[in-house]
Parts: sequence; structure tokens; C-alpha cells
Amino acid sequence: MVTGQDQRGRPAVSQDRQSLEQQQSQPQQFASDNYAGICPEAWAAMAEANEGSAVAYGDDDWTHRASDAFRALFQTNCEVFFAFNGTAANSLALASLCQSYHSVICAASAHVETDECGAPEFFSNGSKLLVATTDGGKLTPDAVLALATGRSDIHYPKPRAVTITQPTETGQVYTLDEIAALSATCRDLGLRLHMDGARFANACAALGCSPAEMTWKVGVDVLCFGGTKNGMAVGEAILFFDRALALDFDYRCKQAGQLASKMRFLSAPWVGVLESGAWLRNAAHGNACARRLAAAIADVSGIEPMFPVEANAVFLRAPEAVLQGLRENGWRFYTFIGGGARFMFAWDADLARVDQLAADIRAIAA
Amino acid sequence: MVTGQDQRGRPAVSQDRQSLEQQQSQPQQFASDNYAGICPEAWAAMAEANEGSAVAYGDDDWTHRASDAFRALFQTNCEVFFAFNGTAANSLALASLCQSYHSVICAASAHVETDECGAPEFFSNGSKLLVATTDGGKLTPDAVLALATGRSDIHYPKPRAVTITQPTETGQVYTLDEIAALSATCRDLGLRLHMDGARFANACAALGCSPAEMTWKVGVDVLCFGGTKNGMAVGEAILFFDRALALDFDYRCKQAGQLASKMRFLSAPWVGVLESGAWLRNAAHGNACARRLAAAIADVSGIEPMFPVEANAVFLRAPEAVLQGLRENGWRFYTFIGGGARFMFAWDADLARVDQLAADIRAIAA
Amino acid sequence: MVTGQDQRGRPAVSQDRQSLEQQQSQPQQFASDNYAGICPEAWAAMAEANEGSAVAYGDDDWTHRASDAFRALFQTNCEVFFAFNGTAANSLALASLCQSYHSVICAASAHVETDECGAPEFFSNGSKLLVATTDGGKLTPDAVLALATGRSDIHYPKPRAVTITQPTETGQVYTLDEIAALSATCRDLGLRLHMDGARFANACAALGCSPAEMTWKVGVDVLCFGGTKNGMAVGEAILFFDRALALDFDYRCKQAGQLASKMRFLSAPWVGVLESGAWLRNAAHGNACARRLAAAIADVSGIEPMFPVEANAVFLRAPEAVLQGLRENGWRFYTFIGGGARFMFAWDADLARVDQLAADIRAIAA
Amino acid sequence: MVTGQDQRGRPAVSQDRQSLEQQQSQPQQFASDNYAGICPEAWAAMAEANEGSAVAYGDDDWTHRASDAFRALFQTNCEVFFAFNGTAANSLALASLCQSYHSVICAASAHVETDECGAPEFFSNGSKLLVATTDGGKLTPDAVLALATGRSDIHYPKPRAVTITQPTETGQVYTLDEIAALSATCRDLGLRLHMDGARFANACAALGCSPAEMTWKVGVDVLCFGGTKNGMAVGEAILFFDRALALDFDYRCKQAGQLASKMRFLSAPWVGVLESGAWLRNAAHGNACARRLAAAIADVSGIEPMFPVEANAVFLRAPEAVLQGLRENGWRFYTFIGGGARFMFAWDADLARVDQLAADIRAIAA
Repeated sequence: MVTGQDQRGRPAVSQDRQSLEQQQSQPQQFASDNYAGICPEAWAAMAEANEGSAVAYGDDDWTHRASDAFRALFQTNCEVFFAFNGTAANSLALASLCQSYHSVICAASAHVETDECGAPEFFSNGSKLLVATTDGGKLTPDAVLALATGRSDIHYPKPRAVTITQPTETGQVYTLDEIAALSATCRDLGLRLHMDGARFANACAALGCSPAEMTWKVGVDVLCFGGTKNGMAVGEAILFFDRALALDFDYRCKQAGQLASKMRFLSAPWVGVLESGAWLRNAAHGNACARRLAAAIADVSGIEPMFPVEANAVFLRAPEAVLQGLRENGWRFYTFIGGGARFMFAWDADLARVDQLAADIRAIAA
Repeated sequence: MVTGQDQRGRPAVSQDRQSLEQQQSQPQQFASDNYAGICPEAWAAMAEANEGSAVAYGDDDWTHRASDAFRALFQTNCEVFFAFNGTAANSLALASLCQSYHSVICAASAHVETDECGAPEFFSNGSKLLVATTDGGKLTPDAVLALATGRSDIHYPKPRAVTITQPTETGQVYTLDEIAALSATCRDLGLRLHMDGARFANACAALGCSPAEMTWKVGVDVLCFGGTKNGMAVGEAILFFDRALALDFDYRCKQAGQLASKMRFLSAPWVGVLESGAWLRNAAHGNACARRLAAAIADVSGIEPMFPVEANAVFLRAPEAVLQGLRENGWRFYTFIGGGARFMFAWDADLARVDQLAADIRAIAA
Repeated sequence: MVTGQDQRGRPAVSQDRQSLEQQQSQPQQFASDNYAGICPEAWAAMAEANEGSAVAYGDDDWTHRASDAFRALFQTNCEVFFAFNGTAANSLALASLCQSYHSVICAASAHVETDECGAPEFFSNGSKLLVATTDGGKLTPDAVLALATGRSDIHYPKPRAVTITQPTETGQVYTLDEIAALSATCRDLGLRLHMDGARFANACAALGCSPAEMTWKVGVDVLCFGGTKNGMAVGEAILFFDRALALDFDYRCKQAGQLASKMRFLSAPWVGVLESGAWLRNAAHGNACARRLAAAIADVSGIEPMFPVEANAVFLRAPEAVLQGLRENGWRFYTFIGGGARFMFAWDADLARVDQLAADIRAIAA
Repeated sequence: MVTGQDQRGRPAVSQDRQSLEQQQSQPQQFASDNYAGICPEAWAAMAEANEGSAVAYGDDDWTHRASDAFRALFQTNCEVFFAFNGTAANSLALASLCQSYHSVICAASAHVETDECGAPEFFSNGSKLLVATTDGGKLTPDAVLALATGRSDIHYPKPRAVTITQPTETGQVYTLDEIAALSATCRDLGLRLHMDGARFANACAALGCSPAEMTWKVGVDVLCFGGTKNGMAVGEAILFFDRALALDFDYRCKQAGQLASKMRFLSAPWVGVLESGAWLRNAAHGNACARRLAAAIADVSGIEPMFPVEANAVFLRAPEAVLQGLRENGWRFYTFIGGGARFMFAWDADLARVDQLAADIRAIAA
């Protein structure tokens, strides 16, 4: 039986997710950081933007103000565009760097490869993703070099771009030196560097560096800055630090169904989180909750983190009996990455609830 | 100079729009019905949806409830999907009816042909739009027949679908008989019938018929129901009355960057406007304002409506001096359709402001 | 019933073509100039190329030699690529000039618009064709200007290229001045000029000018030079006079299934027709046959040419009774353009057979 | 510097191929089986087809005859289409089995994955290839099952087809039982089975089975039958054993630039090789030459085949000194697969030259 996005009984959902998605939303769960709602600062800006009428398609005051807020935050006169979600933002950005017969180098765990249903190939009309498997899951200059130079005949798509996820899907953060080394390799090879920043703010909070230091100052050409996971209802920002790359990008967004008519409602929340500093506070809170959980169970035998806890995610390797026990206690989490349990903390994570989770893990593991 | 969607000095904007888009939003303007904000019912639902956390990607209670609200309103167990905007909704729906080597028949004034920057061709990877020019701008069975049978060799894309805009871009409404006649022709020719309902509610209000009567009961296969112009921040609904056509449509939406992670914020507003009846009230108000303006200036010599006023739009043919006078009085309107002045009324149109417009037209024309 | 390209009873063929395509090939017909076979010079080159083995994918001596023959013929160091047919050559060339959100200006009768089944939109992933209807069917600077400047907002695909068919589908030839005027307009508007030269040789023969004079010397950026209609089995050449436009075009051809493994068999025929001068002789013969027919029936009352006879085509307007009489005499011709009878003459047209046709027309018309 | 397909100094060619492609074609080399020319039977048919004129676009007697020859050879009323090359044939066939949000399962060494420059993704507008790495390089039911069931959420493209290369790129042949087992798994999973038969004839010769036994009788839905490597100048055939899958495939070919106007020259060679039995003789000869070489050097120490020699390819693992010695003796071969030396034998392989190669290997290795 075919059903809609509300997925009543849709067979095309793994049992893991099926069972997960069908439960009620209360009490608070940490299965994903997009279970969270809209943060107060974003909400207040939307409320204010809703007073009176405004010009459509992005030539309103809110959109100008949000764009300028990005330029101020990044200390550069970058091009700023707004898209509805991360899949579109990443795909549009990569499509602007490639032709269909080009290829994009990414890590095996990259969201563009594993969780966007072929969107990058669709938006680019065929640009191939060249996947690197590395220790720790981060791309390295050597991995890029190997993929970029392994083939150079016309029977194989020509590499034109590299994309890194900051932080990675498993919560590791590229250091500034690592990014600088990658961008140097890209320049040597004539490749452009794109950063998938669905959780960009969490990376900034983790490294304690400025957005500028993590992007154009270390050679990033294009950034997709995630707003949804940062506390907004919907919306990502695409920043071109090399303005020439943004030529006609507004037409690209329009044709691809990513130009909002009432743009102010996509841009105002950015004004709310950027001007208030909430973008960073929200991320820092999520990171702190992840560290808090990791610390609280560090000494629990039989339970160990699968990956270093550097941002807002904790992946736990635990006996199936423990995972089952947690489920029976009402806890929800994804287990389709590495067989462990993924917990992700958003801007609204309740510390008491985090502590409850830690306590349950300890009790069940005992 | 290249600039972002905030379009600071973007040259690729006609002067007409340039001057239009750069003015302030106050006092209320009627240049477009998407200058309006979010209606109270939609806003209240978003506020309620923002309490606590919810499952992502559409398996939350709000999305189930919104989908059921559509099924109840349309009195049928249709498939329901949510997309971010009308360009994407129309393009995805048409792409699901066609292969790249097929074609879609539409009116010359159809939004898919004139204002979506090639989106239908992009999403379908090349499906061609076959354009019919008709008196009054509505598609007719004869026009469909002529385009569908004019060529039948493999050197020309094979027609597979027909799309009608209800109401049309210039504000005319297809009668139920006209739609039934078109769908009969479509069935005879093996074509599917799609309805672009960016202002579907205005058509329902105009005809005083039920959504079911205007769609599946007269042979419409797929409807794109506009939420943005009806009073929401963002979002359209795609309804498949022939459920078989919706096979894997959720994958299509995901790949095309149209699956919202925090889906509740796309679906809750629908609950707000559908369950409260605001969807119809909002539309009726816009229609009434259009009729009010038309009636108020009916006897003004030198000013005449370019098209019958059947929905929420009034297109006025007036001497350039009058148009200039209106501009000098601070009025904004589009003039790129037929050289007249377009005024469109949304859910929030202020009657006093409408009357002021009528008075100014009368005074300036005198 | 579904059938293959051999089209046994395929319903998707117009009756006109159906009856046409199903008859035997003898005696010689003039319905299309691709009813002709391979000319001796092309055949001899293929035979010679077939001796021994050769390197694949275009790095063989024949391909080098054919490329150099083009450079010599066009008196410039242009980039040369080989594609299998005209639909692919035109579509690949236009795709290299556009992004998906751009548009291409062409005449209403252009082959890319009327007879390539949406190929330009497919190869470019959505670039829209903007169609101009002009007297005589040729594009004009005014028509290009009107289409290029009529819209300049992001809701409409941005014009990036102009394509002209030389000669046109109805057999008219752009003069050098006309092409120069168009290219000047293109330069003013920032547009690239592409020439669809499916019958390029016929145009050269008609104007008595050099290939260089008809292309880069008057501002053509890219030319698709037709080999099939000129006397080859298969194959078109794509010439980039602005070499920068050819960047990575070999990858584009490969990805689009247009790179021949045994390239020598696509390139050798070009050596055969270019070095021997057959390319021009073949075209001149076809043109002469068209003029011969037109002259022979010039005084026949009730029969008149629908278009000026400038290349190898004659379109006759005649009473249906006359057309039927011709069919009964065994003559085949297309009638789907303007309701007249199209006769096209290839390199192998038999003068006696041409005279027979003229005599039959005269007799039947009497 | 940019150059054309004749690749004068094109930088985007690996040195390995560069050096290879730039040498003269004589004496006969075994670097690739598409270094060979046109076999006598194909040539004779082309010569005969070149007499007189013929109807265009595939409704000529030669195309009907070739299609019927395939139906007779495969003992079934299959749909038959002709494309210019294997990249296009495979991509069009897979695109007809998938939508853009679907995926195709293939082996890591599959030509569609490694040597078609993203063509499958381009023709399908984004269908992703899911790659299986298996021992021996053949797909297995377990590998298909793992990839087809590993993910079943809408964030990952839904598997719809499986493609196998028969024989594989390294020259192994799937047994009938292996194919039957794969097709059974495909049926269980609702997947379609496509066979890339670029060297299909070599597989038939190797197994000594009929084309029917290797395809539809063991569950293959669509076959791409390679003509180029089998002794033709250009051209592949696409056979749909499930005729329903061929719906509108002729439009797909036309739009994708794969419909030949002078189709007879694509179809006549098939008549030549199929009716005469040359298709099988040519393949058998190539296979015999591969076995001959393998046998002649079986006892040479330090030299060993990298893969079982089952078709017309021999991949040798040898010390670099030996490879260098062979190069110095004028031998050409690809080494970009596994670091060994690939030798491929076509219909025209000279036995004396094969023996010379064996002798040189023995001498140099000594």
C-alpha cells in the first residue's frame, strides 16, 4: 500500500526507525536533534516579522538584515542565500561547483552520500560522489589526493570539488589545521572546498573559534550553515566566500524550488539567532549535554563511546540487552550506525532528562 | 556584481520590479498576495506544535492530523504530501506523471510556463511544456486535443499530462463543467490531469463548491493546494486522488530537497487553517476585496478591468498617467502582465485601504 | 502494443509518416535527404580505415587527420569533436553554453524545438528554449532582443545562447550580413551564438562563401557540422571557435554516450569528404536538383513554392488532388510542414528522377 | 590547453594511457578488443545496405530484418532497439528500469561504475549505483540481498534494478546457475535484472549455451548486446524480454541522441553477423586466443594470470621488469587494473602474433 509522508504503515521504513517514529513525542527524546522545536529567539523574530506585509522573494528588510548579519558574523562580504533544508543547500552548492561529468570527493560517512537519497546526483544531473574510507571518518589530504589522481582519463568523472561535514555525522570536529591542510590540497589539485555545516554552530562551539576562522580563513569556498538543527523551524544558509562562484545562484535556487515567496519567514529567524548570539549558545548547550552524558557513564563497564564526543552526539556501544533495557524504559535512539545507540542533544535538551538517561544506563548495565 | 537573494542591486531584476521591491512594506500594498503574513489560525497551530519535541520527517502527530484533515475535507482517502513551495509542488507532481521524453500541455499564461524558471523541465529532466494560447486564457478541450494529436512521431515529446491553473494567473475560475470536459478529453487521450491550485481556496470560495466537487469528482488526478497565499508562512500540499500515482513519491520529495526534517512546522499550519475553516474564510475575504475594488471603480471612465474579476485579483487597464499618479500616491503594483496594473488581495487585506485605493483611482482618473 | 525501433505497427507514428515509412525504398524518393546512402569518398575512407587495428577513443591517426582537416578548412585552430547524430551534437553544444536555469533563443521552426523530442532540455537538465516566430522563419536581431530583454527577473530562465539553423528547416539561407548582425546583437546582450549546421555544406554551396566566412568570421561561437546528410553513414562534427568554451567537452560527450570506441570509423569519413572536396560537391548537387525542380515547374499553374528555394529543399503548395495524384504515381514526400509537399535532394539525387518528378507534377496539375 | 577528442596533448589522460594511445597501430596490439576493425560479414552487409536509398529512422527493411534476426536467435518475441555505443545502451536500459530516486546494484568492477563517466547517473537524472565488492568480482545473491535490504528508509535511494556484466571486466563468465540464482533473488526483492553484454558473444562461446539460455530463460529482463567489440564499426542492441518494460523506449532513445537517421547502417551489420553466425565465430576466436596465450605461458615462472581466463581477456601479474621488457619489445597493454598487464583478443587476432607475444614473455621472464 502506498501512503503519504505521514507514513501510515509505510513499508519503506526500517523496523528500527518504524518503531522509533511511531511513539509519542513525550517525554523528551534524544534520538535526533531535529526532534527539537523552534528556539525563543527564532520564534520572537518570526513573530515580529509577521507584523504587517512585506515584499516577496527576498527583497524585504528582514532578508537584507539577515544577510548582513552573516556578513558581520563571518567578517567578510560573502554572498548569502537561503534554502529550505540541508539536502537542498548541499546539493545546490555542489551543483554550482560541478558540471554533470565532474565528481565530488567526500567521506564514506558523509550525509550527501548516505542520507540524501541521491540528491547531489539529482541536482547536478549526474555528478558522481567519490567516496573515501578513512580511519576516524574524516577526509584527509592523502585520501583526497588518492581519489583525485587515481584516474585521469575521460572514462571517469573529473574531480572538481571536495566536501567535508563539520562536525562529521558521528560527531567529530575537524581542527582548523586539518581544514587548512585539506584546502591546501584542494588548491594544489584545482578543487573547490565545500563544507556541510548542518551542525556548523556545534563545531564553532567545540573549537571556540570564530566562523571566519573555520571557513574562509582556512580556505573553505562555500559553506552550508544549518539553521534547522540550530533552533529554527526550517532553513539553511548558503554562504559563498568566493563571490564569483555565486553567479546566477539565485536562478539555480529558484529553478530548484528553493526560493521562498514569503522569504522573511526564512530569514527573520536568522536575525533572531545571529544578532542575539543564540546560534552559539544553542550549540554550546547541545555539546555540553553530550559531554555530560559521556562523563556520567564513563566508568560504567560494558558501555563505551564508539566515537570521540566532540560535538552534540554520543554513540554508545553497549550489549543488546542494555539497549533493549533502555527501550523498555522508554528511551528512543537510532542504532543503524555501527550497531550502537545514538543520542543527539539539541538547544532544548533538559539536563534532568540527560541525567535520567545516564542513571538508567548505569542501572541497566549493572 | 553578483549578489545574493537579498538582491542588493541585483541587475537581473526588471526596473518595474526593482522599483517595486525596494520600497518599504508599510502602508499595506496589494502588489501580490504573498506580501501578506501568517494568519492567526496558522500561527496558533505553529505555536502549539512548538511545545515539546516531536518525531522528524513527517511521522509526527501534526502531520498525521493534517493529512487526515485533507482526507476529510476532500471526502476521499487521497495521498497527501507536503512541499515547501508551489514551484516544487507543481514540478514534482508533473514529474511523477511524466518521463523526460513526455510533454505537458498547459495554457500560455500558466505559472509553470511563465514564472518557475524552467523548474518543470528541471525536475522532470526535460519534459517539454506544450503551450496553448486561448481566448480568455483557460485551456479548452479543443486546445488540448489539438496539441495532443498534432504530432505523434518519436521526434516530438509524447503528451502525458495536462495542467490547469485554478484560478488562472489572471484570476479567472474554471467552472466544474469546464474541468469535467477537460478531464473527459484527458481520459480519451490517455492524459493525466493536474491542477495547480496555488490559489485553490480562492476558486472554491468563488464557485461555492466543495474541494471534492472541484477535483476528483470532476476527474482531477493530482492537486497542488497552495498554503502560502492562503495564509501560511510556507508550504503547499500535494494530493493524489489516484493513489497509484503516488508510488514512491516520498522518495521523489526527499531527493528533490522537499522533505522537511521538522515536518510538524509545515503540517501544523494546515491543521490550523483546515480544521478552523480559515482556509475558506481567508480566500473569501480576498475575493470580496477584489470585487469591492472592481465595483467601486466600475463607473470610472478610462479605467477598465482587463479580465473578469472572479477570484482575488484585479487587473486594471488605465492610462499611463493614471498609473504614474497611483505610484506617486505610494501605490505599488505589477505591470508586467499586459501593461495593466495588477492588484491582489490576501487574507489580511484592509477594507479601508481597499477603499482608499478605489478613491485614489477615481481621483487621479478624473 | 509496444514495438521496437523497427516500428512494426507502432501507433506512435502519424499516418502521414506511417504510410511513408512502410513503402519500399526503390525507386529513389526525395522525401528526405537522409534516405541517401554513403557517398564514395566517405566509403573509401572507411574501407581504408578498416585496414589493421587502431587506437580507440579518438587518439588514432584518422581522428587526428580529420580534426586537422577541419582546422584547415575553417582556417583556424578550432576545437573539434565528433558525435553520432545531430540531435546529440546540437544538445551537447547548447548544454555547454548554458546551465539548467538558462535559456536558449531559437526560431519557431528550429529543429531543436520541433524535432528533437526535448533533447536540448534533457542534455541541459532543463534549459528552456525561447521561441521566436518571425516572417520567413529566420531569427532576427529584433526578435533576439525582444526575447532576451522581455523578462529579467529570477522567475524566468536567463537567456545565455542563441541558435540558428543554417539553412533553415524550410531551406532558407542566412546571409553573412544577417549572421553578423545576429552575432553583434548576441555580443551586446552577452549571449553565445550556436549554428545548427545539419546542412551546413548546402549553405556554403548556396552562398559560395568559405566555411570560415560563414562562421567564426561573422561571430559564430560553436558550429554543429552535419555529416550524415552530407553523405556519411553517421556522424556530426562539433567545432568550437572559442576554444575556452570546449573545456571538458570531451567528458561531456563521454558521459552522454557520444564517445565512439572505434572513433576512426566516425572520423575517417570526414577525411574522405573534406580532403576530396566531396563535402561541397555533394551539397552543390543537392542544391542544383532543388533549383532544377523549382525551375522546371515554375510555370505550372496552381503549383507554387511555399518558401524561397535557396538550398536543397523544395516545398510545394499544391491542391490535395495533385498531391494525391503524385502519391498514386508512387511519389513520397512529407506534408506535415504547412500542408505542402516537401522534396529534399541529397548527394545522390538522380537528375532523370528529378525530371520525372517535374514531369509528373506538370501532368497531374494539368 | 584544451583540445578535442583527438586529444593532442590532452592533460586529462593518464601517462599509462597517454603513452599507449600515442603509438602507431601497427603491428597488431592486444591492449583492447576495440582496436579491431569491422569484420567481413558486417562490412559486406553495410556495402549491400548502401545500395540505393532507404527509409530513415528505423523503418527500413534492414532494421526489420535485424530485429527479426535477434528474435530468431533468442527464440522469443523480444523488443529490439539499436544504440550507438555501450555506455548509452546500458544507461538507457537502466534508466528505463529506474526513477531518479531509485538505485542500481552492481559489482565494484562493473563498467557502468568504473568507465562510463557517470553516464548511468546522467541518463537517469541521479539514480545511484550501489556497489558490491565480492571475491572474484561477480555479484552474488548474498551481495544483492545485503545491498537491497541494508537500508529501507526514504533517506536512501530505493533499489530497483541489478546489473551484471557478462563476462565481467576481468573476463569471468557467470554460469547459467549463477544467473538464475541472481534472478531468483531479484524476483524475491522486486528488482529487475539487466545484463551488460558488451562481450555477450564471448560469454555464449565460453559456455557453449544459447543466447536464450543465458538471458530470458534464466530471468534476465533486459540485455545490452555489444556489437562493436564483436566486429562492428559501431552499435549495440538493447533487447527487452519483458516487452512491457520497453514502453516508449523509442522516445527515450530519440531524446537521448541515440536514434540514427540512417538506421540501416546500424542494423545491417547485425544482419551480417547474426545470419552468418559470425557473431559467435568472432567471439570464439577471441576466446581461443586468450586460452592459447594463457596455455603457452602457463609454465613460465614469475608470470601468472590474475584472473581465470574464461573469455577473451588475459590479465598477467608480472614483475615490472618483465612489463618494461615487453614495452621495449613494442607491446602495448593496459596496466590500470590491478597493476598487471591486460591483453584482449578480438575477432581479428593474429595467431602468429599471439604466439610471438607468448614467446617474448617467456624470453623476457627468463
